[in-house]
Amino acid sequence: MRSKLPQNKLSIFAVMSKMAAQYNAINLSQGFPDFNTDPKLIDLVTQAMRNGANQYAPLAGHLPLRENIAALVQDLRGAAYDPEQEICVTVGASEALFVAITAFVHREDEVIVLKPAYDTYEPTIELQGGIPVPVQLDAPYTKVDWDAVAAAITPKTRMLILNNPHNPSGMVLKDADLKRLEELVKDTDILILSDEVYEHIIFDAQQHRSVASYPGLKERALVTASFGKTFHTTGWKMGYCLAPKALMAEFNKVHQNTVFCVHHPTQVALAEYLKEPKHYLDLGSFYQQKRDVFLNAIKDSRFQFKPSEGTYFQMLDYSAISDLNDVAFAEYLTQEKGLASIPVSVFNKDNRDDQLLRFCFAKNEDTLLQAAAILNSL
Amino acid sequence: MRSKLPQNKLSIFAVMSKMAAQYNAINLSQGFPDFNTDPKLIDLVTQAMRNGANQYAPLAGHLPLRENIAALVQDLRGAAYDPEQEICVTVGASEALFVAITAFVHREDEVIVLKPAYDTYEPTIELQGGIPVPVQLDAPYTKVDWDAVAAAITPKTRMLILNNPHNPSGMVLKDADLKRLEELVKDTDILILSDEVYEHIIFDAQQHRSVASYPGLKERALVTASFGKTFHTTGWKMGYCLAPKALMAEFNKVHQNTVFCVHHPTQVALAEYLKEPKHYLDLGSFYQQKRDVFLNAIKDSRFQFKPSEGTYFQMLDYSAISDLNDVAFAEYLTQEKGLASIPVSVFNKDNRDDQLLRFCFAKNEDTLLQAAAILNSL
Ligand SMILES: CSCCC(=O)C(=O)O
Ligand SMILES: CSCCC(=O)C(=O)O
Repeated sequence: MRSKLPQNKLSIFAVMSKMAAQYNAINLSQGFPDFNTDPKLIDLVTQAMRNGANQYAPLAGHLPLRENIAALVQDLRGAAYDPEQEICVTVGASEALFVAITAFVHREDEVIVLKPAYDTYEPTIELQGGIPVPVQLDAPYTKVDWDAVAAAITPKTRMLILNNPHNPSGMVLKDADLKRLEELVKDTDILILSDEVYEHIIFDAQQHRSVASYPGLKERALVTASFGKTFHTTGWKMGYCLAPKALMAEFNKVHQNTVFCVHHPTQVALAEYLKEPKHYLDLGSFYQQKRDVFLNAIKDSRFQFKPSEGTYFQMLDYSAISDLNDVAFAEYLTQEKGLASIPVSVFNKDNRDDQLLRFCFAKNEDTLLQAAAILNSL
Repeated sequence: MRSKLPQNKLSIFAVMSKMAAQYNAINLSQGFPDFNTDPKLIDLVTQAMRNGANQYAPLAGHLPLRENIAALVQDLRGAAYDPEQEICVTVGASEALFVAITAFVHREDEVIVLKPAYDTYEPTIELQGGIPVPVQLDAPYTKVDWDAVAAAITPKTRMLILNNPHNPSGMVLKDADLKRLEELVKDTDILILSDEVYEHIIFDAQQHRSVASYPGLKERALVTASFGKTFHTTGWKMGYCLAPKALMAEFNKVHQNTVFCVHHPTQVALAEYLKEPKHYLDLGSFYQQKRDVFLNAIKDSRFQFKPSEGTYFQMLDYSAISDLNDVAFAEYLTQEKGLASIPVSVFNKDNRDDQLLRFCFAKNEDTLLQAAAILNSL
């Protein structure tokens, strides 16, 4: 049997979470919180089910939810999207990313991917016969080399995938980055797929800059967002995509064939929940406090780091501790020391290894301090 | 912009449900119940959310749910599937169908599709560069012409898609059908994608025969099933796929990139619910009673029909009433008479029009009698 994805391995998130369970390790690998969501939101889902919102939703999503998303995006990003024709509710940002690539990447089209990159972008491009064009950032991946991006652009470039705030590095793009990108794509047909799932998790004096706020980018952009990251419900698989009308029409053609629509009662609940005082606005300080607890607890360890600017991930450099490659070191840490993380090389071009591990700090303080104790012992 | 799916229109289900709402018509178009699911199942979802099952599920699904699916399939179909490696929980059967096609259909591969066919099969084949090979059944589509299927097989045939019980006709395959198919594919590499979402909705003396029960088919089959059809929760988008280990490994490679996993608390609830006395076993008589109420109420109308053998759909032939094509007649019925249905031509090869409309009878008796009164007036 000829495989469609001969190179595709089991997701590193599945591998490490399974290993964590097997060795009873603290699981800071796969990105998800170890605390529950707001009971109010749970009650709203229950209410929606009892009220009978258990049959198909409209294919682009429950309209009041799309309307509230439009209001939110207008409010925070100063960007107008028509809820009827420019917003689609998706099975997490995962489905939004998959559909956006599938709908627009034709055979032999090139897609520029900044590495390290989330692990679903490239297999999805390959399934469409597209050609991923990786542009590797230098460790610790906190600056985009736009000249390298410019050099990667060819007449066959169909799409460029951005991830801001950036997983795994925590990099947050600056105004100058987005302006430079706007300049680069001007007078081209290049689409931007902008994965902004950590948009509300931003630290210190930083600010999230969505491509939706830059007219020269918005006109060609598909923006993906996640309720899972924002409301601590990664397992509900709820997200959405924003795009101008002509792009959204093509997006929906694929979405109607992948899943048709998304868990209806959860959509009804989220529509209600978004009306309440802006829950997502304090997410930055909520997670900054966790980052600080974690980093403060390991400041005297032999790990080196630059504090994450956004996302709920922190990379740590273990080169002062071990010569093992990062996969081997992550395994060692899980199996021998009881702490699971993600080896960053899996996200890199040709699995380049910079001796960095990624830790998820979306955890209770206790969990973070236990993890820190293990790191301090090394 | 070159469209990836230039021919793909907005799903007929979305079109007709929207038209029904707009004209305040009784909606017997899109297939879904107008009554709620079991309150016990709703309570189980609530409980799962309160217990914190709100983060990512394993990518192939919550293991106890897969175990209960395996037990169910063993019990009803006499077929063994390993819950660890041969079952994947999906975003409805929709995602299962999409992933099965995407994972196995290579560019220029031929895929045999019996027409009339559900509307997502062919666009999904086309997205992969595959070639749909339609084999049109004769109206009222209640018999497969296996000689025509045999004639459609070529060395490039990669897959054959079955739908049993069949939407829109209600046809239920007989033992002889499956034996003939087994014979046809023997000594070939042809995969079978078997869409069995209405497996529990079977009437009269009929019996569901799954490809899983035929060793020569099971070894090469991906079987898709739906909790939405079975538990009256089409909007929860919960289904699953069964396949032998080697096929499931390729299926999961695609599934991990489309959605990664499925609404976790709903999976936990379904796992519990499947343990209770076998809810799905009386689904046939439950829906047969509805079919009979509906058909009895229109037996003196000018519509002609053959009672549906399975599914919750009934086709009606309106040729004695109007010369309009079925799309025009369905629009007329919705807009002028207040009753929405699905024109069957959208499922046919080259939109062949046999003057048939499809009506969904998964409705309360009141709704069915109101719809019948309209049909009797024509
Ligand atoms: C879908 S599992 C991956 C979760 C995640 O976004 C991450 O850990 O990077
Ligand atoms: C996903 S909407 C289509 C529902 C359905 O299966 C049908 O009406 O045939």
